[in-house]
Amino acid sequence: MNFAIKRSKPNKVINKANLGMDLEEVINQSNEYYLNNDIAVIHKKPTPIQIVKVDYPMRSKAVITEAYYKVPSTTDYNGIYKGKYIDFEAKESHSTTSFPLANIHPHQIEHLKKIIAHGGIGFLIVYWSKFNEYYLAPFDVVYEFWKNKETDRKSIPYSTFKDKCYLIKEGYIPRLSYLKVVDEVYFKD
Amino acid sequence: MNFAIKRSKPNKVINKANLGMDLEEVINQSNEYYLNNDIAVIHKKPTPIQIVKVDYPMRSKAVITEAYYKVPSTTDYNGIYKGKYIDFEAKESHSTTSFPLANIHPHQIEHLKKIIAHGGIGFLIVYWSKFNEYYLAPFDVVYEFWKNKETDRKSIPYSTFKDKCYLIKEGYIPRLSYLKVVDEVYFKD
Repeated sequence: MNFAIKRSKPNKVINKANLGMDLEEVINQSNEYYLNNDIAVIHKKPTPIQIVKVDYPMRSKAVITEAYYKVPSTTDYNGIYKGKYIDFEAKESHSTTSFPLANIHPHQIEHLKKIIAHGGIGFLIVYWSKFNEYYLAPFDVVYEFWKNKETDRKSIPYSTFKDKCYLIKEGYIPRLSYLKVVDEVYFKD
Repeated sequence: MNFAIKRSKPNKVINKANLGMDLEEVINQSNEYYLNNDIAVIHKKPTPIQIVKVDYPMRSKAVITEAYYKVPSTTDYNGIYKGKYIDFEAKESHSTTSFPLANIHPHQIEHLKKIIAHGGIGFLIVYWSKFNEYYLAPFDVVYEFWKNKETDRKSIPYSTFKDKCYLIKEGYIPRLSYLKVVDEVYFKD
């Protein structure tokens, strides 16, 4: 999850269809369902924190009194599904026309590139809040835009999501069956 | 990494052969080597922190002023190696006779069990500080003791490490070539 998004939380307009849950909660709930039903083991990585000062008011409980957010060196989610290593990042777009590439950390692109080179599955889940649509964007689609962003456009148009990415249908349990889409895209044979 | 160990850091005796590095640093260095040499993508997960209060003295930098350590729900390390999902926990034993099972969180055992059921590679790296020896302990060896710990002994004897686990030789670059041992144990064929 992007810090910028996190910080703006108090001001965000809650999408009715979203039941007040943010993207992270929606994905965590799905992962919990997958875990409890023995479908996959996928966890969100904790937010990386630089701890500066810790107090011990009682022997039993340390209190961190000074710490800072660190830039993540990997994506937020990884795990195993059908024997394969799976790795992704989840992002939101509040635009109706494009997803800004500045939303992704360069480290995360480098990380996903390596994951794919080593035989893993890597992608982005992008939530378009204005449309209440979730897309699985395969890494190669994202990377086509990323590698040309200095000379070409600095965002991925919504139309590319419609044409080259995969809509993840919302359901009840789990809310976001993104592994169904993973099946279609990565386990076709 | 175990919190108990972390907190006792200021008092720890630095093993000369260990060059002042703790187990986490030794493993992180090896992982960095594996990453930079395109051998594997394995990262330590950030320590899970419950953030309670954040101040924004400047727009650009948030300061966390109250936070607590959370019990980890997974192991510390995971990633991909030779196309396989790999997952492990690193622990130290300061004893000369046995490794206490209380050093491992029940969540971590459950997590590793699931990883293996889904086709991943799971193990423990145990550092015996008194002997300056590192062992790869396959999950099934650990689990044999874990599942009987209520009725049988509550630790794994050092002799089991000698007999059923695998010594990881220390080197120069990387310090701990644990993937060499992974090759022997999990990629024999």
